[in-house]
Amino acid sequence: MSTLHDSIFLKNLRGEPTDRTPIWVMRQAGRYLPEYMAVRKKLSFNELCRTPEAACEVTMQPIRRFGFDAAILFSDILVPLEPMGAPFHFGDGGPKLQRPIRSEDDIRNLNVTEAREGTGYVAEAIKLIKGELGDKTPLIGFAGSPFTLATYLIEGGGSKNYENLKTMLYSRPELLDELMDKLTDQIIDYLAMQVEAGVDAIQLFDTWGGILHPQDFDKVILPRVRRILDSLADSGVPRIYFLKGNAPFLESVKTLDVEALGMDWTMDLSDGIKKLPNYSLQGNLDPLVLYGDHDQIRSRALEICRKGTEAKGHVFNLGHGILPKAPIAAVETLVETVQGFRR
Amino acid sequence: MSTLHDSIFLKNLRGEPTDRTPIWVMRQAGRYLPEYMAVRKKLSFNELCRTPEAACEVTMQPIRRFGFDAAILFSDILVPLEPMGAPFHFGDGGPKLQRPIRSEDDIRNLNVTEAREGTGYVAEAIKLIKGELGDKTPLIGFAGSPFTLATYLIEGGGSKNYENLKTMLYSRPELLDELMDKLTDQIIDYLAMQVEAGVDAIQLFDTWGGILHPQDFDKVILPRVRRILDSLADSGVPRIYFLKGNAPFLESVKTLDVEALGMDWTMDLSDGIKKLPNYSLQGNLDPLVLYGDHDQIRSRALEICRKGTEAKGHVFNLGHGILPKAPIAAVETLVETVQGFRR
Repeated sequence: MSTLHDSIFLKNLRGEPTDRTPIWVMRQAGRYLPEYMAVRKKLSFNELCRTPEAACEVTMQPIRRFGFDAAILFSDILVPLEPMGAPFHFGDGGPKLQRPIRSEDDIRNLNVTEAREGTGYVAEAIKLIKGELGDKTPLIGFAGSPFTLATYLIEGGGSKNYENLKTMLYSRPELLDELMDKLTDQIIDYLAMQVEAGVDAIQLFDTWGGILHPQDFDKVILPRVRRILDSLADSGVPRIYFLKGNAPFLESVKTLDVEALGMDWTMDLSDGIKKLPNYSLQGNLDPLVLYGDHDQIRSRALEICRKGTEAKGHVFNLGHGILPKAPIAAVETLVETVQGFRR
Repeated sequence: MSTLHDSIFLKNLRGEPTDRTPIWVMRQAGRYLPEYMAVRKKLSFNELCRTPEAACEVTMQPIRRFGFDAAILFSDILVPLEPMGAPFHFGDGGPKLQRPIRSEDDIRNLNVTEAREGTGYVAEAIKLIKGELGDKTPLIGFAGSPFTLATYLIEGGGSKNYENLKTMLYSRPELLDELMDKLTDQIIDYLAMQVEAGVDAIQLFDTWGGILHPQDFDKVILPRVRRILDSLADSGVPRIYFLKGNAPFLESVKTLDVEALGMDWTMDLSDGIKKLPNYSLQGNLDPLVLYGDHDQIRSRALEICRKGTEAKGHVFNLGHGILPKAPIAAVETLVETVQGFRR
């Protein structure tokens, strides 16, 4: 067994005992870091995703600065959409698809055979990062869930009410099914490629999975998430499913074969542990706590660590991505507090 | 007993048996109605809120057109903030406060003694509407919850992450407490005024109450909501508490003395009934279903009606406000379906 296999991050995902709680934070390679902003002065977000050396550099930045217990590949959930024939760019208002995917023809024209070929730069970045990380820190690969990707494809970018997606769901559900199936195939191939390239764990992000009625969640989202997670069951790589706003869907979520579930801060961690005893849990500090007093950061982080000792396994994280104005000193206090806690 | 007291809407709020399910929809007096848009060509949103005859006219429009089983006062949740010394206006991007309330001085300077006096036009509108409605259709008054109002006051308008409010919560919670207490006093007076003016039921809107950790919900939101609801306990007017995204907070919510709870569409109504057997429930169709097929509208509405028969009482509603592009024909189909259902 390598040191990596025994890292406290992977042990907690597998539910094995460790003496302290591992921590990483979503979007840890991001805009709150001055060294990241320095790279972004030279490269656009899109170029950064597509340049393995630069993606490796920004992935490593938060590891060097804070000593997080896991690294996460720098990339974007929309990356596997481009080889499908749905190019996008990133502006001030977030991602914009060149043209939204709404009609039968739009969906039929999406290509699902090019995930590996079209995203070779991601595999290359993973190899570079693994070389840098060595045996000390595990690397998390990731993808967006088919539903979350479908919201961007159909709306053409971010959305408030998902009017186009829901119009499709409530008038041509078979079209949405077809799109979801194509995205699922693409994600399966994209994640298999990441595993082959060497990632040590996988997180599936379902940021917008919580906007549906539970019956629609069960019909539209759950079978595809299950298919993706099952495709990795024999990979030896533990899987994390992060469904934001998961509280109404726990009965469905707990039918999934997955090592760990992400939790946002709107559910108490102890409540989550009670309802999901068979899963390791990841979370769940409100990212905005980092804008507050350091005493608050410490006491809230410690409370989560203490509650986490009752879980099958617990990985400390924020309940959603860290925000661009999070002060560096606040992140330092957070990491120090969590890594100083002894179970 | 008047006919009004025996209306199916009020009976369902009180948990008394009726042969069919009453329906109204949030924002039923709004932009999806051409006759409303015609009024808005002559008056701004702000003028409309402040002109009793016009507010009465737009309140009546959806009753005349669709025969909803309850009318809701046309107004805005921000209305009681102006007499406190926090004026606002409505632009294309939603409400904007003239200046956000963030410092100790800002909060101290807020005035809580003028709710009745400063919003006399609301009382006048209520009296006009009651005259128009007669004994046939009950009128719902409403207010925003202190927390939802606090988000607008502190952020200065709508917000994505509530950075300023949460910075206050996580660094100067005593300031947020002070603001919340002032808003609670104001809302109590504002709702008492509405009851005196003649409304038949009250809805408290907590649109943004779901953004906190349950422990913060219990500390910051719950005691103030309780105080407001309790202030109306002897009024004879049934109360509805609508907390959007309520799923993680049901244990707290079910300590409230209130007749009915609003539900959005992310929780199944049957699940809500199981967890909240002692309350009448209101909801919970996704407003976007109105963008879909009429077959979908009918089957989904009927399913909610059928599930609702198991509740203590059930008032059909959307899970959030109706959207501006909802087709009139879809609303007609919805009302016809719900009013045609026999329990």
